[in-house]
Amino acid sequence: MAECSYADPMRAREVAEDYPLVKVSDDALDAARLLAQRRLPGVVVVDDGGRPVTVLPGSQVLRFLIPGYVQDDPSLARVYDERTADKCASTLRGRTVKELLPPKEKRHELAIVDGSATVMECAALMARLRTPLLVVAEKDEVHGVVTASHLLELLLLADRP
Amino acid sequence: MAECSYADPMRAREVAEDYPLVKVSDDALDAARLLAQRRLPGVVVVDDGGRPVTVLPGSQVLRFLIPGYVQDDPSLARVYDERTADKCASTLRGRTVKELLPPKEKRHELAIVDGSATVMECAALMARLRTPLLVVAEKDEVHGVVTASHLLELLLLADRP
Repeated sequence: MAECSYADPMRAREVAEDYPLVKVSDDALDAARLLAQRRLPGVVVVDDGGRPVTVLPGSQVLRFLIPGYVQDDPSLARVYDERTADKCASTLRGRTVKELLPPKEKRHELAIVDGSATVMECAALMARLRTPLLVVAEKDEVHGVVTASHLLELLLLADRP
Repeated sequence: MAECSYADPMRAREVAEDYPLVKVSDDALDAARLLAQRRLPGVVVVDDGGRPVTVLPGSQVLRFLIPGYVQDDPSLARVYDERTADKCASTLRGRTVKELLPPKEKRHELAIVDGSATVMECAALMARLRTPLLVVAEKDEVHGVVTASHLLELLLLADRP
């Protein structure tokens, strides 16, 4: 790019940040540990060709770990101790990420923008969809993500003339 | 702590972590900058008595910054440049956090647990509500928050006999 004047808007591909990706065929326990170790609110799930599929939020992994009857009745949770949960956790072993995902109609809509989208387009899409995360992709390949707080940083804290 | 037997369940008050709080009467631009600087997905909003009210997500601040007609028509976003957004950002100045919040019926349901709730109760509630964040409060005072990824850490990574 030649002269970068103020009129040249920032593009999604320039501001996208790395974010952990997991494949649908990856081990479910590894994915859950990734969320735990890096304290992520979610991970981006891609198919085995690398195409983005959905976001797997931490609360969905908890849904898998905690039996439905315990979710429905909080008084059962009190007597359902952590050792029992440990046993449930071990059931993640040998499962795939695909098995953790909710049914398609209940999945988080994955907000995807092209790398050429301007920062303002990203912000407008994020505002409309009320989503905290956009996946930046080009030709079905994930470049990274843009978060709402990153856009706020670009819009509110950028040091501009 | 004396002997911490396995049978003693962990309680929300022991595992709650600090999280930025903003008051409804706080300056809106300060709150937006807090989200930006600390790259937070949201902040917990409390009333002037310190009682938790809701969570203000970054995407809601973007909704306030980006005019509705730009949110509705992505092609307008492309011509709506960052300088214009800067001007919008300046409109945050002098506003309060309360003005940023969506109408009550559209607010994020704030998931609150008592400090005595067990980790399993927190996990069950979070799984049921599909929320990434619980506010831990006692007597209307916020102790901190518990995130889904923190619960996964406690359930999956804890070093136990």
